[in-house]
Amino acid sequence: MQENSLKSSPADLTAVEAVRAISAEKMSCEALALACIERIEAQENICAWAYFDRDTVLAAARAADKAPSRGLLHGVPFALKDIIDTADMPTAHGSPIYENNQPNWDAPCVAACRAAGAIPFGKTVTAEFAHVQPGPTRNPYNLKHTPGGSSSGSAAAVGAKMVPAAFGTQTTGSAIRPAAFCGTVGYKPSYGDFCLTGVRDNSPSLDTLGLITRSVDDLALFRSVVMVLPYQPLSSVSLSDLRIGLCRTPWWDEAEASTQQLLTDTAGTLSVAGARVSDFLMPEGAAELVAAMRDVSGFEFARVMLHERLRHGDQLSQKLLNGRVADGIACSYETYRSALAALEAYRTSLSAAMADFDLLLTPSAAGEAPEGIDSTGKPMFNLPWTATYVPAVTLPAAFGPKGLPLGFQLIGHRNQDARFLAAVKAVERFLNEKSK
Amino acid sequence: MQENSLKSSPADLTAVEAVRAISAEKMSCEALALACIERIEAQENICAWAYFDRDTVLAAARAADKAPSRGLLHGVPFALKDIIDTADMPTAHGSPIYENNQPNWDAPCVAACRAAGAIPFGKTVTAEFAHVQPGPTRNPYNLKHTPGGSSSGSAAAVGAKMVPAAFGTQTTGSAIRPAAFCGTVGYKPSYGDFCLTGVRDNSPSLDTLGLITRSVDDLALFRSVVMVLPYQPLSSVSLSDLRIGLCRTPWWDEAEASTQQLLTDTAGTLSVAGARVSDFLMPEGAAELVAAMRDVSGFEFARVMLHERLRHGDQLSQKLLNGRVADGIACSYETYRSALAALEAYRTSLSAAMADFDLLLTPSAAGEAPEGIDSTGKPMFNLPWTATYVPAVTLPAAFGPKGLPLGFQLIGHRNQDARFLAAVKAVERFLNEKSK
Repeated sequence: MQENSLKSSPADLTAVEAVRAISAEKMSCEALALACIERIEAQENICAWAYFDRDTVLAAARAADKAPSRGLLHGVPFALKDIIDTADMPTAHGSPIYENNQPNWDAPCVAACRAAGAIPFGKTVTAEFAHVQPGPTRNPYNLKHTPGGSSSGSAAAVGAKMVPAAFGTQTTGSAIRPAAFCGTVGYKPSYGDFCLTGVRDNSPSLDTLGLITRSVDDLALFRSVVMVLPYQPLSSVSLSDLRIGLCRTPWWDEAEASTQQLLTDTAGTLSVAGARVSDFLMPEGAAELVAAMRDVSGFEFARVMLHERLRHGDQLSQKLLNGRVADGIACSYETYRSALAALEAYRTSLSAAMADFDLLLTPSAAGEAPEGIDSTGKPMFNLPWTATYVPAVTLPAAFGPKGLPLGFQLIGHRNQDARFLAAVKAVERFLNEKSK
Repeated sequence: MQENSLKSSPADLTAVEAVRAISAEKMSCEALALACIERIEAQENICAWAYFDRDTVLAAARAADKAPSRGLLHGVPFALKDIIDTADMPTAHGSPIYENNQPNWDAPCVAACRAAGAIPFGKTVTAEFAHVQPGPTRNPYNLKHTPGGSSSGSAAAVGAKMVPAAFGTQTTGSAIRPAAFCGTVGYKPSYGDFCLTGVRDNSPSLDTLGLITRSVDDLALFRSVVMVLPYQPLSSVSLSDLRIGLCRTPWWDEAEASTQQLLTDTAGTLSVAGARVSDFLMPEGAAELVAAMRDVSGFEFARVMLHERLRHGDQLSQKLLNGRVADGIACSYETYRSALAALEAYRTSLSAAMADFDLLLTPSAAGEAPEGIDSTGKPMFNLPWTATYVPAVTLPAAFGPKGLPLGFQLIGHRNQDARFLAAVKAVERFLNEKSK
């Protein structure tokens, strides 16, 4: 992290803290916006932004200071992965095909945040069509390393404290992994909870809108706004009420030593602090999820991309064409249907296996962000939770041997996100107290 | 039906017949296009089209005649419900908000058909955002009657033989009902089979792309193109191989006498012809599907429509705001999740109950198309099959006391659409032979 980010600034506030300060008239929307703009301009070498216009943002903040009505997110800056439609900014999908593409509406998630008073700061860099070909974004903790992807710019912008919150998406590991690599809090809701209208499809049976913030309270606040539900602060949960399963997954041996250590240490300290921690074995068939996910995402992505493949094939990357598209062309309808059925069956198995647990504790990624920006890292620690539609949060917990952030991932019960986030908050509080 | 449509014309051909004639060089693409254009211009009083440009269509047909490669749908005219994105025609969603809205891409279903050589003839009138506020379209069999909706123009255009095929969508009964009212073959595939990318969302948990044609073979041909699957003509099925369940549904008393008669007569004649026909009782809970569907579609639609509600509320109809949007605002998250769970449970019940049947036979609508164009008719005979994600086809079978078409609906097993369409074809063949 660069030095100027260490100075205290309104840009360091979480969304909840910012709303409180603005509401108490201790800070203007303009002051917050200016601090965020300053941070963005100072750290533009991380290339988090696909579109950012200082004047527009500042005008919106000044208008917010004069606005009579104050929504739940009044004056809060937020960023949008560049596959989300915005009426006043282009949406380029990380592809030259859609350079300067100007939608004529706001995706509902954008409309909801604007209506709550939040200020869309700009569009953040995405891997090409939210797949794997990276954009120019760099990790804010070390410019030589990837920020992860495909929600690269969203994670980097929040990690560098340019904005308190950003939307990403996840089809395999595209929100949780970059969030962990950039030292932020990342959230993939239960499948279907957040409306994806106006967001570019990748693989509709798997796509989920995600949120990247710097606190669990912020997740809950944005969640209520996006879902247009009455806001209730998270209920207070004690660690001693939580049954936590340490889930090493079949890919444990592929995790770096520092990540393995973080997970077992965390399980130990949570147990000492009162949580009931035990090992959680994934139901049989976890390893087979990889092939099923390849078939489902391939079959759907190859079809979603038809227009671009047929009309603009020369502007698509080889990684895209030889990756998910090739997988999809090779996948028969029968194989696709079998894969969908296998995923559905595994959802039932996992749900049964989780009956005696409130949370699972599992790696967010294999380790620190890899060196180089040609690859965004491996998704196997995210894939099972996307496949099973359960909610997932990554919390920043430590730094690895290279000085890059390490997170761990918590998994909850499907469609019980409010209860899940309350439990996650108990773990976050424990981390914060421990680090004092 | 107006007199000129009774004259023999290339416009009367089905897609399969047209492809055969063009392939055998008995007809040019231009001749087919001209015949369809002539039909459109002669019958424009049905107001099927939201966008139609004679010159563009004719140029495309002439280019097709010169094209060296010939796809599965070479030269076949088709229409698109005006909520489907097209790179060269506006997409207005049946709303003044999107008048002249020009997408910069083709939805994958459009791209697939173009790549197969089909010619997009234009955009057909949709009810406002594919909900219930109708456009100006009239029933081609009687201008004083509704064509049904929300895929109003698609059904009217195919019913009037302006084009052999059109895409619609269905969230409750928006493809099957208008198809039946206009004397056409309508198809709602198993949920999730046809890619909906580039098609305006209504209620994503329920939305399905649909096809309207004048033959079951055409459904199979378009299906293979849209899904980018190898084309196989439908396998030959004998009526005596089919176990058919006559499903009166809990709404039987709301069906008109002529529809009740058509269904029981059809069950009788199919039985005489060799099919094994028996009564099928829907599993308990069918009537409760209505409330669950209201909650699911309301909750989702109210959120999908956020941008328009917030920015263009004065341009939305009262029917939309007081209908599905109001339902959605009134629906809590807990009620929504319960409703989704109830639908999922009913899918399992229905699948078990259907184990001994190949097809269900059930009304396509309550009766003939109602008089007036202010309402598109009631959807209760379509709702259970949308709710349960099963494939449905309506076949035109008779005329009612007012001289308007009557159809009946066939239902198949979820995700077994190829087998389903082969069985439906056996019934269609029986109808055609009977009418000779």
